[in-house]
Amino acid sequence: MTSTRLDAARKGTPREQLDLVRELAAAHSNWGRWGADDELGTLNLADARAVGRGAASVLDGRVFSLALPLGQDGPQNGTLGRFNPVHLMLRDGGDVVTGAMVDDFYDGRDRHMRGTDGLVILPLQAGTHWDALSHVMFEGRMYNDRPAAEVSSRGARRNAISRAAAHVVTRGVLLDLPRHLNDGRPLAPGRSVGADELRSCARAQGCEVEEGDALLIRTGHLQRYRSAGAWSDYVAGPAPGLSLDSAHWLAERGVAAVAVDTWAAEVLPNETPAVMQPLHIVLVWSMGLLLGEMFALDELAEDCARDGRYTFLFSAPPLPFDGGVASPVNPVAVK
Amino acid sequence: MTSTRLDAARKGTPREQLDLVRELAAAHSNWGRWGADDELGTLNLADARAVGRGAASVLDGRVFSLALPLGQDGPQNGTLGRFNPVHLMLRDGGDVVTGAMVDDFYDGRDRHMRGTDGLVILPLQAGTHWDALSHVMFEGRMYNDRPAAEVSSRGARRNAISRAAAHVVTRGVLLDLPRHLNDGRPLAPGRSVGADELRSCARAQGCEVEEGDALLIRTGHLQRYRSAGAWSDYVAGPAPGLSLDSAHWLAERGVAAVAVDTWAAEVLPNETPAVMQPLHIVLVWSMGLLLGEMFALDELAEDCARDGRYTFLFSAPPLPFDGGVASPVNPVAVK
Amino acid sequence: MTSTRLDAARKGTPREQLDLVRELAAAHSNWGRWGADDELGTLNLADARAVGRGAASVLDGRVFSLALPLGQDGPQNGTLGRFNPVHLMLRDGGDVVTGAMVDDFYDGRDRHMRGTDGLVILPLQAGTHWDALSHVMFEGRMYNDRPAAEVSSRGARRNAISRAAAHVVTRGVLLDLPRHLNDGRPLAPGRSVGADELRSCARAQGCEVEEGDALLIRTGHLQRYRSAGAWSDYVAGPAPGLSLDSAHWLAERGVAAVAVDTWAAEVLPNETPAVMQPLHIVLVWSMGLLLGEMFALDELAEDCARDGRYTFLFSAPPLPFDGGVASPVNPVAVK
Amino acid sequence: MTSTRLDAARKGTPREQLDLVRELAAAHSNWGRWGADDELGTLNLADARAVGRGAASVLDGRVFSLALPLGQDGPQNGTLGRFNPVHLMLRDGGDVVTGAMVDDFYDGRDRHMRGTDGLVILPLQAGTHWDALSHVMFEGRMYNDRPAAEVSSRGARRNAISRAAAHVVTRGVLLDLPRHLNDGRPLAPGRSVGADELRSCARAQGCEVEEGDALLIRTGHLQRYRSAGAWSDYVAGPAPGLSLDSAHWLAERGVAAVAVDTWAAEVLPNETPAVMQPLHIVLVWSMGLLLGEMFALDELAEDCARDGRYTFLFSAPPLPFDGGVASPVNPVAVK
Repeated sequence: MTSTRLDAARKGTPREQLDLVRELAAAHSNWGRWGADDELGTLNLADARAVGRGAASVLDGRVFSLALPLGQDGPQNGTLGRFNPVHLMLRDGGDVVTGAMVDDFYDGRDRHMRGTDGLVILPLQAGTHWDALSHVMFEGRMYNDRPAAEVSSRGARRNAISRAAAHVVTRGVLLDLPRHLNDGRPLAPGRSVGADELRSCARAQGCEVEEGDALLIRTGHLQRYRSAGAWSDYVAGPAPGLSLDSAHWLAERGVAAVAVDTWAAEVLPNETPAVMQPLHIVLVWSMGLLLGEMFALDELAEDCARDGRYTFLFSAPPLPFDGGVASPVNPVAVK
Repeated sequence: MTSTRLDAARKGTPREQLDLVRELAAAHSNWGRWGADDELGTLNLADARAVGRGAASVLDGRVFSLALPLGQDGPQNGTLGRFNPVHLMLRDGGDVVTGAMVDDFYDGRDRHMRGTDGLVILPLQAGTHWDALSHVMFEGRMYNDRPAAEVSSRGARRNAISRAAAHVVTRGVLLDLPRHLNDGRPLAPGRSVGADELRSCARAQGCEVEEGDALLIRTGHLQRYRSAGAWSDYVAGPAPGLSLDSAHWLAERGVAAVAVDTWAAEVLPNETPAVMQPLHIVLVWSMGLLLGEMFALDELAEDCARDGRYTFLFSAPPLPFDGGVASPVNPVAVK
Repeated sequence: MTSTRLDAARKGTPREQLDLVRELAAAHSNWGRWGADDELGTLNLADARAVGRGAASVLDGRVFSLALPLGQDGPQNGTLGRFNPVHLMLRDGGDVVTGAMVDDFYDGRDRHMRGTDGLVILPLQAGTHWDALSHVMFEGRMYNDRPAAEVSSRGARRNAISRAAAHVVTRGVLLDLPRHLNDGRPLAPGRSVGADELRSCARAQGCEVEEGDALLIRTGHLQRYRSAGAWSDYVAGPAPGLSLDSAHWLAERGVAAVAVDTWAAEVLPNETPAVMQPLHIVLVWSMGLLLGEMFALDELAEDCARDGRYTFLFSAPPLPFDGGVASPVNPVAVK
Repeated sequence: MTSTRLDAARKGTPREQLDLVRELAAAHSNWGRWGADDELGTLNLADARAVGRGAASVLDGRVFSLALPLGQDGPQNGTLGRFNPVHLMLRDGGDVVTGAMVDDFYDGRDRHMRGTDGLVILPLQAGTHWDALSHVMFEGRMYNDRPAAEVSSRGARRNAISRAAAHVVTRGVLLDLPRHLNDGRPLAPGRSVGADELRSCARAQGCEVEEGDALLIRTGHLQRYRSAGAWSDYVAGPAPGLSLDSAHWLAERGVAAVAVDTWAAEVLPNETPAVMQPLHIVLVWSMGLLLGEMFALDELAEDCARDGRYTFLFSAPPLPFDGGVASPVNPVAVK
């Protein structure tokens, strides 16, 4: 698809926009590629070779956590019903000090040791997270031709996040777009990034994206808000991000997973006003690609800029929630 | 401490039992070892060298998830107020099918794509988890001489699990006790395992535990219940596990973290009836050791028996819950 | 409908059972009776006259709470995903004692007063509750011909419990079946009660059920379990209760609401094995009757037996949960 | 206490302010008045006579609900960790439409009827609520000389809201301050109301407050925000309310409970800057008075203005949460 064709369709009628998304989805579909029962999608590409390539990228033993803190200071503001994690204590140090713990938890018998326990009320997409292949619905279906009805009030019977539990360890490649495109400054809200820029960024960084790699794409958008000290419209507001035009390159490269430092991964406002999150449709729904959002990539990017190495071992297995359509994750990059 | 001395004290008066625990705790204390501000404990030992050793253990690219599924079929039964995760949908496939999603979430405007969202109510110790250093209180304090009061209804101000977010990647060593001690059968409930048996197991497996390694100890107890198809008294019931006598070897070896396939890691009933979870006091409270519970080690153990390699890269960073005294985790072993 | 006809159909084929339920539902339907927009159902009958009759029943000023305690000791066991309320503290006395409250909640400024706060995770049908008219679905619809789709993941757009917020105050009549039918002993599990017995019980008690009254029906089943000290199969197990044969009398009398001291109000096992909760269909779905379950009626019954007065003011407005399909309630009877 | 004395102290040093509150608390203390075991406080005054007086106030059979809706559109904004109720569905109409309900909840057996179920995550003080006597701590204690330690992470062992379950039915009296003092317009934020104005308002309305009555005090503040269509600073912002000077009159009258249409009941900012919520200390902590907040009194006030009757039956029993320090409530006034 030429960029011109894309531009025309994006500015076209709602029908033309929808046709464009359908066309792109059809062009990159992996439905059936790994069998009718497949629930892994592009994670199938993160094979033993990719894992080995990841391990071989560990040279210095430095570990980076790529997760936002999970707590009341998170970015959520109620959009889509999501809120910041609510953390509550089942028993705490106050109970130790007052002596209540012995009565309330140990039947009044003091055996000297005390334990504390906590509980969290956690929207699965509240912080740094993976979208499961059951997160995106289009034309009444989800990845690999399964009906929307497979996600009931009990959760996802198919394409649940738990399926990925042993599959998100591979080589990671960071693409630091601010450094490549903008003298280190965050990309502007609304700035879309297509295949050419991703390719040239990788080349400039001296790394090649290989089949089964996880791609971490830094736009600087998270840093923008962290510097400002307020989340304001980080959730659902205008943001830089991937263009529909990136899909063909991600498919061609055989990327296993993509994670971005924004709320939506793809550029906002949507490139197709008439079709919400069109790139989600192409990547998650059609390709079966694991998409990560709100990844904290700034510290890793600093390190990569320092030593010029943008590849590492990437380990980010989701929690195996039965029926989960997403999972919070603490991804690590190991260099 | 000789095994005889331990035996005598364990069978002694409540006061003698308490003195024993205090003595062991004092003998292995790491309070102050890494400074008064330290909140990492033995994770300090998982340095770049240990990470490199872990990465070098990846030979075949096989990945194992060591987590129990998180859902209503989990082992919790209400003990200590813990229950199995409650998973609920914020919006689901039913809303897609009925059309409610457009009205309820997209202001009545149909832009073709639909998303599903979930939420979980999750006791942090419900499934496979790490205990934070703020989980264990003794004599009114926790690791590194901090008062119990530092864990309020808001959570832990110090020693929170979030501190470990970038620190649980290292080499892992599996000790498969059933294969070493019991012809592959699960150890009996109440069977304690001390330093000699851990050492001889490692030797028999042809591996040496080195400073900064994470030690995964399989008792077969989880398999016992999974085979039976019911959790019955898996939580808080009699179980095989580590003896107080294991502490000196874990300290001497410089182990960074220990995880076991039981609810309590240490043997149950407690070796010191008058002091609850005495080994938690020595390991977590005094040594500052990250302790993992309910790890699912059976599949990994099968693989290790097959190829004779009991070492691997171990990646198990907790979720960075603000103030968390524990965290669910999906640990992976990469061989 | 004769009792013979009912018996025959109940023992008939699944199709005959379904036809019976449909026939009864049609016979007693209130759909459209109070307009196409009605969401109150038989609560329309609890008019000013009924309220006045209730107030006139207050002679001595005694107040009875008819609710089970809400807490971990409740009857729920996970059936239908319902669990007992989980009560957690946002801030508690321990925080007061340790001083943490000032730092955590008052910005470090001690202004002498301290407050405690709690939170509850509460399945709406966990304890004593009203079913909303949106709770029962049959043939894809709910009361007053509304499609099931009107109850989305966001809750009920129509027939929500909040609609009843100002409407459950009326005269109450207690029918104490154990005293009337069984020398005061609880009715046996599986014992069904039809129109004749309800009528004769009222007569024996010297009271007449009038249009707009709320009818509280005691079977003794709750007392059976409370005496035994364990809930065992109180939820969803065999229980005495209303027969399908009671519907015509409840309709004829113009009862505004019915509450029973059992989990299901109607007899269990279901009279029509092929149709689950058939009386729910007739009463809630077709008549639009507010149905209450797990009401604690024993203390009130004692009092009524003592003074021979089985009528009282009944006040039991539900909490106005937006979209709620049920509500916990603390009903009071005032004599 | 003269108004002059109050004024002087309020403007005095922090120490003088604290002394004032202590003095007022001591002057009106009910600790021990109903015995050392009492957990009801002034609800003891709502005796059979008061209940009878309430019932006798029912003349026309009109019922008013005084609760705010419970849902995401509520007033909470995170202050003190409180948030608006989160309502989630355990099973909904979407599951009915897709057929998932039969598989997920009925073991695949279609027995024609379907049920919907919901769950709420509910801070107990999120909406219209009663504060329990365990909500207010001062000098390390709560009502009737009980230590703060009696409220642990499990909730309140003493003075829990459940104790009031059968005790909040009495005569209610509405004092409509906007109509009395301000031509019907809401009182200004910061406007305090003392004994004289309460007394004169009652007199102007032609009603006398008697021992055991519940007093509902309308400031118009809730209406101010509802008219504006946004909650903005309704929670914790400046508000009209009761003055410390009201305490002596409430005590002298023997009021059983007080409820106001504001977040804090007492005037904000606090009259004693150095002592937070001083009237809570005097009323709740010392007198043991049940205090209600965020009561929706506007519709009732309209009716009272219409017929000139400001007395009614008031029924507002809290839900019996084990250990609750507050409870949501749907209070009703019956005229």
